[in-house]
Amino acid sequence: MSDLSPLAPSSFPELPPVAGLRLATHAAGIRYAKRADLFLAEMAEGTTVAGTFTRSLCPSAPVDWCRRILAEGDGTARAIVCNSGNANAFTGRAGDTAAALTAELIGESLGIEPHRIYLASTGVIGETLPEPALRDGLPALAEKLAVSSAEAWTDAAGAIRTTDTFSKGAAARVEGTAAHIVGIAKGSGMIAPDMATMLAFVFTDLAVAPAVLQTALSASVASSFNRITVDSDTSTSDTVLLFATGEQIDDELTGVDDERFGAFQAALDTVLLDLAHQIVRDGEGASKFVEVRVSGAESDAAAEIIAFAIGNSPLVKTALAAEDANWGRIVMAVGKAGQAADRDALAIWIGPEQVAAEGVQVEGYSEERATEHLQGDEVTITVDVGVGDGAASIWTCDLTHGYIDINAGYRS
Amino acid sequence: MSDLSPLAPSSFPELPPVAGLRLATHAAGIRYAKRADLFLAEMAEGTTVAGTFTRSLCPSAPVDWCRRILAEGDGTARAIVCNSGNANAFTGRAGDTAAALTAELIGESLGIEPHRIYLASTGVIGETLPEPALRDGLPALAEKLAVSSAEAWTDAAGAIRTTDTFSKGAAARVEGTAAHIVGIAKGSGMIAPDMATMLAFVFTDLAVAPAVLQTALSASVASSFNRITVDSDTSTSDTVLLFATGEQIDDELTGVDDERFGAFQAALDTVLLDLAHQIVRDGEGASKFVEVRVSGAESDAAAEIIAFAIGNSPLVKTALAAEDANWGRIVMAVGKAGQAADRDALAIWIGPEQVAAEGVQVEGYSEERATEHLQGDEVTITVDVGVGDGAASIWTCDLTHGYIDINAGYRS
Repeated sequence: MSDLSPLAPSSFPELPPVAGLRLATHAAGIRYAKRADLFLAEMAEGTTVAGTFTRSLCPSAPVDWCRRILAEGDGTARAIVCNSGNANAFTGRAGDTAAALTAELIGESLGIEPHRIYLASTGVIGETLPEPALRDGLPALAEKLAVSSAEAWTDAAGAIRTTDTFSKGAAARVEGTAAHIVGIAKGSGMIAPDMATMLAFVFTDLAVAPAVLQTALSASVASSFNRITVDSDTSTSDTVLLFATGEQIDDELTGVDDERFGAFQAALDTVLLDLAHQIVRDGEGASKFVEVRVSGAESDAAAEIIAFAIGNSPLVKTALAAEDANWGRIVMAVGKAGQAADRDALAIWIGPEQVAAEGVQVEGYSEERATEHLQGDEVTITVDVGVGDGAASIWTCDLTHGYIDINAGYRS
Repeated sequence: MSDLSPLAPSSFPELPPVAGLRLATHAAGIRYAKRADLFLAEMAEGTTVAGTFTRSLCPSAPVDWCRRILAEGDGTARAIVCNSGNANAFTGRAGDTAAALTAELIGESLGIEPHRIYLASTGVIGETLPEPALRDGLPALAEKLAVSSAEAWTDAAGAIRTTDTFSKGAAARVEGTAAHIVGIAKGSGMIAPDMATMLAFVFTDLAVAPAVLQTALSASVASSFNRITVDSDTSTSDTVLLFATGEQIDDELTGVDDERFGAFQAALDTVLLDLAHQIVRDGEGASKFVEVRVSGAESDAAAEIIAFAIGNSPLVKTALAAEDANWGRIVMAVGKAGQAADRDALAIWIGPEQVAAEGVQVEGYSEERATEHLQGDEVTITVDVGVGDGAASIWTCDLTHGYIDINAGYRS
């Protein structure tokens, strides 16, 4: 396992319990020795579910499974099972069999129909999940279910890690209610707009109708997990699942016109953005947490494309790693984004220091001050492309020797 | 300057003279000390010209200049001037002034109208070209013009280098004629489909009508410079210029139905593909020359997009650097390309070793044999996505610590 990211939070948060939710972890030896590699959450009867998944055209077997049961089901769910170390992706019919077996074994242990059991797998692609480890491990996992205490959350967030250097969790209270939203996530490489190799499992004890839950989740993912990039790569396994047990507040939120919807969306946004930022902070080899803000674009969507062109550029990312105020590379990235931009109206800031205005370096620009900003852990790049009102922010990290070390050694 | 790329050719080729062409280089001290940083080619009266340029929306001043004189002119040209060390990009009005001054000074020295003088600049973005160096250097450059001997070609290819670790040149005879095509190029970082930071200047002594020259050049660039990627970044300065002096063979090639057109196109393709491959071989930090072949796509264009998704993936490129047959990352890249692919019909080869067929690892796959192939300097990845007849090949290199070293230190 790699050294702790220098951008890691000082500690894992103390996460509150979610009513109607029990958690378990277990070390089944699927790939890793001497650590938990299975995670299970069991939710109360009547729990509703929403999900978003990778846009990869080669999705993993668990993604196929979740998509199917989400589409064919009645919007309720009873469990989520996740293993780390093996992605169960590109495993053909054997992969589908392993997914079905996982749901069947947990279903038997807990007395739940398999089509209410969600699945996720993360790790190496192309290897079949070992059936003996599943047959031994899953019933043992189910036996360990316990209340969602702070300790249980810590264990859960640890069990779903692969190359992550720290566990990721976040929580928020739904304002004006006694309900919480709590989530855990994993991910540090293969992170790109469409959620990359990341998993997030989020739970609330407010009752929310499935359609409302999906609306809130899709909106929140669009401005959090879909706004981060580590290396522009997209995984076969990305999954964000949101479950609402209704065990704290059973007065169901049935529409977006419910007066509590705003507070629910705000709390969900807080949790997902926090988790998304934690994933960037654990970007493979990252030494800087970078926010790229683009304004003045033709539309918000155009601003997002330009921001990602900057945030995914290896030349920009290596300059950031070197704390080099090489803003020409930012111009290059704006130019290659393919979105309308007025070169002669372009303005650029590195942190608070304005570098360029109207297409040229500003008088009084201090490379020293820009460099000072880049020497910090948190870097902001702001670009106005001068053609409209579209704006967007994305979050990324720098590209360092650490990324190469991790990815040239991960599997072997 | 970085160490010589391990993929460099053993020596710079002995390039033949082109009739009607004189070359010069000069050390003007624009950025580099003690090396030539100006290149000039003067062509005979009546020379025709064709060009392709970066698709960046923030093009450099010389790109703007060339596009304008190419569009407004009569298809003839008399000179090309190039400086290295400063891209004259994102320099606002001062950049346009410097470009115009360059053409004016060379025009005065040689008695040529400025609008027949093509320009290119490569190097750092955002800094103004130093006027005194231009006023002193350009007339001195013009005085050094001499016949396009092998020595002159060697000097010319050297003068246009920036981070290149070797000079790039290629030549071919137009079969069945006494005419040659000779080209030089530069580029090693910021290399992506749309030609990235690369310059290529190509000359023939066959007479070719401007429209035919442009047709041939565009076709040839599409299958050479637009099929390579080092880091997916696109520069503000990419320029490919092709000049036909007609001084060896003045019987003009006026249409694609001319019986000599096929031989001309073939020779041009040979020269441009050779130069494109040399650029990849000088990819920043490259230790492997990688060909990615995709077949079975819905169209050739779809195959090219999938091939670039593989060739630009940092996870694939770091695995190649580590000689790790981590073919799951190839599946990931196919999945993220957004083009139709049948996961359950996917077939993958690493060199001659078939890894996967019909969506799963093949029986008898030998990781040892795949690794053996990856340990060589030249790597081939072949993917059939199983949905159609579209096919394309692209060329790229691996992603190593060397790339980070070079790009975290280039400017400062």
